[in-house]
Amino acid sequence: MRLVDACRLDPVDRTPVWFMRQAGRYLPEYRAIRERYTLIEICALPEVTLEVTLQPVRRYDLDAAIIFADILLPLIPMGAGLTFAKGEGPVIANGVDSAGDVERLRPVTVEQSLAPTLEALRLVRAELAPDIALIGFAGAPFTLASYLIEGGSSRRFLRTKRFMYNEPAAFHALMEKLATVTADYVASQVAAGADVIQLFDSWVGWLGPDDYREFVLPHMPGIFAAVREAGAPSIHFGVDTGGLLGLMREAGGDVIGLDWRTSLAAGWAAIGHDRGVQGNLDPGVLFAPHDEIARRTRAILDQAAGRPGHIFNLGHGLTPETPIDSLRVVVDTVRSNGTSR
Amino acid sequence: MRLVDACRLDPVDRTPVWFMRQAGRYLPEYRAIRERYTLIEICALPEVTLEVTLQPVRRYDLDAAIIFADILLPLIPMGAGLTFAKGEGPVIANGVDSAGDVERLRPVTVEQSLAPTLEALRLVRAELAPDIALIGFAGAPFTLASYLIEGGSSRRFLRTKRFMYNEPAAFHALMEKLATVTADYVASQVAAGADVIQLFDSWVGWLGPDDYREFVLPHMPGIFAAVREAGAPSIHFGVDTGGLLGLMREAGGDVIGLDWRTSLAAGWAAIGHDRGVQGNLDPGVLFAPHDEIARRTRAILDQAAGRPGHIFNLGHGLTPETPIDSLRVVVDTVRSNGTSR
Repeated sequence: MRLVDACRLDPVDRTPVWFMRQAGRYLPEYRAIRERYTLIEICALPEVTLEVTLQPVRRYDLDAAIIFADILLPLIPMGAGLTFAKGEGPVIANGVDSAGDVERLRPVTVEQSLAPTLEALRLVRAELAPDIALIGFAGAPFTLASYLIEGGSSRRFLRTKRFMYNEPAAFHALMEKLATVTADYVASQVAAGADVIQLFDSWVGWLGPDDYREFVLPHMPGIFAAVREAGAPSIHFGVDTGGLLGLMREAGGDVIGLDWRTSLAAGWAAIGHDRGVQGNLDPGVLFAPHDEIARRTRAILDQAAGRPGHIFNLGHGLTPETPIDSLRVVVDTVRSNGTSR
Repeated sequence: MRLVDACRLDPVDRTPVWFMRQAGRYLPEYRAIRERYTLIEICALPEVTLEVTLQPVRRYDLDAAIIFADILLPLIPMGAGLTFAKGEGPVIANGVDSAGDVERLRPVTVEQSLAPTLEALRLVRAELAPDIALIGFAGAPFTLASYLIEGGSSRRFLRTKRFMYNEPAAFHALMEKLATVTADYVASQVAAGADVIQLFDSWVGWLGPDDYREFVLPHMPGIFAAVREAGAPSIHFGVDTGGLLGLMREAGGDVIGLDWRTSLAAGWAAIGHDRGVQGNLDPGVLFAPHDEIARRTRAILDQAAGRPGHIFNLGHGLTPETPIDSLRVVVDTVRSNGTSR
């Protein structure tokens, strides 16, 4: 598979391409499903997850499907009391505000509690063309911890930082619990058919390097080891991480995902060319005229030319307002680039 | 003045220190004023601006006062229809959505339209101890343009990027108009008594390097030249700019402000040691225990030790929830650090 080969820095005939949030609201066929099911319902019904996961792969010539799920799903069996308020994002009823709260979080038997996602992975892998990779994913411990401590989304992560600085032992205990669940979850996803795992540390870029080294780094290598032992390569992604790339490399991941704030060339140099790199078109460029989208896509491909290990992607997830034709321009540009050299 | 000397990379007896948003809601004496006046009213009344500007300088041993104002004030005489909705931030009634909208923006006679802020600068400079610097400031063109195009605050700046990519000539015309007003404004602030100018490009870190080079860089040097010709040094600040530091240096500023996402040492190296650097304590650290605040403050001072040109500050503005005693710990640590070496 082209995507797996690129993760392993093996030569490929052309750069593989997929999009973060490629299954989502920008697609009319997804919005139609969402009229009938909530987000949680889709994730609980493997047949519906299958359908939603395959939608973008039917529409575009992509090199991967990514299982439809939410990074917060593992928090439900842990006892977080997670719901999704209409238009307001996740709400956590039983958040973490003390060492006692951390202790009360329940261990998770992934094969039971996350059975629908694992079953959906089996269904997708069975349906998907053999040369298209299936990506499983999970949220990284810091990002999950921030939701638990903030009680939902956050603008500045002040509660998370206050807890981290004032209750460092409890914070580390929380990270360790989340890392254990995450390691089990990603290993189970590989066993269920995922060819590659992406770990989303979506909010870790709110930490400076010293905090990352102290509070995040110790909890990461075990997760990547679990993926490797299960037999799959891994992609490690965060946004606003330009100052953390060396530490993220140390934390793990065969491929490091870059947002668009760093040039691909500079980011890859900071990571080291013995790792792969994923990215990094600004999702905002998808609102540009088609010739400009193509030009920007080629500019990124040019920065990676002549080196194995580049996966084309956006620098962040697709937004619901994205014009659906814009993605076709990107995919066509990546595909023709490969065959023209 | 210690702050001015540091801006010019001249030796100082100890590192100067001030805080972004040091006049603001975290101070009970500021909240008392805000019970009687709106934000716009404070800015329209030089005597009230004077009071609010001096509040933090009375409470802490700071090396600078920063004039109390809002970066969006120049948009009012341009005809933007700016109001501040209660608890919702700025709202712009006459936003920019076309080349025609850009044309309709009015030129500004700064001495008239921004007279209250200029008068307040004169009052503050007359009251302030002669060794304490008075900082004037303005929003940079991209940040101002983003408010005009988005109609207020934004989470992803998609409207701004869509306009930029689809109407590049109109976008450049908008930037040029804003740069002209900004250059006049900062020069007038120096004439009115500002010893240093800080240019806030608060949201420019949402652009990748290619966009910065094409859409922002051409409009910046004129502003910094205006400050220099008026006789003051300048500080150039943005957040999420780790991947833009070399370009920001090129754009101008005697000192470049760093957020906390990049280590001070790495950021300064990227900028070049022939420029000064300001920063970069995570405002979240102000929620830590006092000994941890002191330790983190010293860690930043250590990264700058032995080099002229460091101004101690946070990596972003103070938040309203900040415990007021935390700032005293930072100030005391910076002051004692200077005298102990």
